[in-house]
Amino acid sequence: MEVVQVLCMKGGNGDTSYAKNSLVQKKVISLTKPIIEDAITNLYCNKFLTSLCIADLGCSSGPNTLFAVLEVVTTVDRVGKKMGRQLPEIQVFLNDLPGNDFNTIFKSLPGFQKDLEKRMGAGAESCFINGVPGSFYCRLFPSKSLHFIHSSYSLQWLSQVPQGLESNKGNIYMASSSPPCVLKVYYEQFRTDFSMFLRCRSEELLEGGSMVLTFLGRRSEDPSSKECCYIWELLAVALNDMVAEGLIEEEKMDSFNIPQYTPSPAEVKCEVEKEGSFTISRLEVSEVNWNAYHGEFCPSDAHKDGGYNVAKLMRAVAEPLLVSHFGDGIIEEVFSRYQKIVADRMSREKTEFVNVTVFMTKRG
Amino acid sequence: MEVVQVLCMKGGNGDTSYAKNSLVQKKVISLTKPIIEDAITNLYCNKFLTSLCIADLGCSSGPNTLFAVLEVVTTVDRVGKKMGRQLPEIQVFLNDLPGNDFNTIFKSLPGFQKDLEKRMGAGAESCFINGVPGSFYCRLFPSKSLHFIHSSYSLQWLSQVPQGLESNKGNIYMASSSPPCVLKVYYEQFRTDFSMFLRCRSEELLEGGSMVLTFLGRRSEDPSSKECCYIWELLAVALNDMVAEGLIEEEKMDSFNIPQYTPSPAEVKCEVEKEGSFTISRLEVSEVNWNAYHGEFCPSDAHKDGGYNVAKLMRAVAEPLLVSHFGDGIIEEVFSRYQKIVADRMSREKTEFVNVTVFMTKRG
Repeated sequence: MEVVQVLCMKGGNGDTSYAKNSLVQKKVISLTKPIIEDAITNLYCNKFLTSLCIADLGCSSGPNTLFAVLEVVTTVDRVGKKMGRQLPEIQVFLNDLPGNDFNTIFKSLPGFQKDLEKRMGAGAESCFINGVPGSFYCRLFPSKSLHFIHSSYSLQWLSQVPQGLESNKGNIYMASSSPPCVLKVYYEQFRTDFSMFLRCRSEELLEGGSMVLTFLGRRSEDPSSKECCYIWELLAVALNDMVAEGLIEEEKMDSFNIPQYTPSPAEVKCEVEKEGSFTISRLEVSEVNWNAYHGEFCPSDAHKDGGYNVAKLMRAVAEPLLVSHFGDGIIEEVFSRYQKIVADRMSREKTEFVNVTVFMTKRG
Repeated sequence: MEVVQVLCMKGGNGDTSYAKNSLVQKKVISLTKPIIEDAITNLYCNKFLTSLCIADLGCSSGPNTLFAVLEVVTTVDRVGKKMGRQLPEIQVFLNDLPGNDFNTIFKSLPGFQKDLEKRMGAGAESCFINGVPGSFYCRLFPSKSLHFIHSSYSLQWLSQVPQGLESNKGNIYMASSSPPCVLKVYYEQFRTDFSMFLRCRSEELLEGGSMVLTFLGRRSEDPSSKECCYIWELLAVALNDMVAEGLIEEEKMDSFNIPQYTPSPAEVKCEVEKEGSFTISRLEVSEVNWNAYHGEFCPSDAHKDGGYNVAKLMRAVAEPLLVSHFGDGIIEEVFSRYQKIVADRMSREKTEFVNVTVFMTKRG
């Protein structure tokens, strides 16, 4: 198991972006490389390609935003050469919410083209990059216009905070102490969003087109399982301490919830089958450690920076959500407390994120 | 003849954008509306459209960037309804240099969708907007992927300042005092750039696809004609005065030239015929007054703001070029002097820009 620095994404509310940690972006793509290669090989097998349309959904904006595209495009090149095919022209669509920093991505394109040329040679000039602002829970592309869809670490974000979380007091996400109705409305929001996602993509993909999606998930069938909820529970501990000390209003705390859902492979499978347009070829689970050090998990290593790295990466995710709800006055204090809590827990137990990766093909 | 506020575009050097004045953008689109309608009608006549790909090249970023798209898309809707056709899905590609502010355009898309709904009703949701960063003197799209290309007030910008302008001392563009070799290298740069533009677009357009291009030009066959060069000559007057007073180094002034070419209809026709992929359906010339007041030209009106509006709009165009060459220390002084010079000339003569609009269709 690889130990990588993981970052979830802020957003889901239409006005920010699916921010990602640069390191995790690279790591997760590396983990899914064989699956992407499978998907591209299938595309070549199914038909003669002169032009290939690819979308990266929830691309975010950071130093490795284009790494996914680089991997997919060079895979198209490598697989094509292996199969004796001519490289098709490739049109790449980078999608994120309209608030994403597309300017920075676009300014980095000359460097990206150089990287592509180094890897591919002359074919690199036949790769055309576009930006597509919008939520992937809506239609983004014309019907039957895409061959391949990639998404990494974005789909765990819901389109909105579920309605009906009044009884989730003291928690900010699903937690071991959440009442069943809370787990239910979170699950229902996931089902609504993910089935909408599947319906939109099934209209946009060409027959035989495919998707490789990686998102935060869980192995357990319990949606309040520690593997997916614990990191938020620790943030709730910090916030509740501050409520107790009168630094945060209790009402404010009670109405704060994270718009995320980390599904199990079975839940993903269930929605895909219900929607009916796709055949699942691979459905896999992998783990990544909370801490930022490379190598196998080692409790003595994991907390040796005093929780600094984990707190930092969670801050990048949670800060925009916290600021928009509580204002920015509490931020330093929250994350200072959170860092200490994380350091304490990491020294005593194994702390991991779970990834679910699914590769599915549109039925004929 | 309409009197509108005209703004040329800064840029042409790959790191800025084709900035446009918001008012002129609306006016020029209104002027070319019947031509756009012709082009869209032709598209419907040629084939049954289920999906339509449209590009706006040199879209810039301002309050009316999406006005061109709004006009084109609602024309598609209106013409389709008149012909009893179902509205196709429309994929719109907004292109400008990678330095353009695409973020601002993307953030304005929710408002644009509302405008579209008001005008079109339910069909508005089938319009998908993309950003395409890159120079239109290169390939931007896959082969045979576009139905219609629109460009307004961008194509007069060259890909670079022509080489060999050493003898253009005292001038900053082609001028009545420029030696013939200066006019020649400017013309050669235009031919190189425009033929490259045509070659790229001919590869990207589907058979029967068309382009409506509007750019600054001239009626006269003399490329140093007053109608296209005078506004720059007046800026050169301001700069030369400052050289004489020791405020600008003579060497600096001698090496400054504007990367623009304002072709005649005959020059445009010549390049289109030489390239050979397009049939010209319409080639038209129109004039717009330098000043910012609505209504017919009237010298007493034109200078009544003391040249303020003209100086302001030329500043938006020329400032980035001047700053990158001379630094920002001289800017206030240059435009203060320029405003006075413009006010003086406008009170004595008719001062206009010339637009060339060409509508051409890709041959079968």
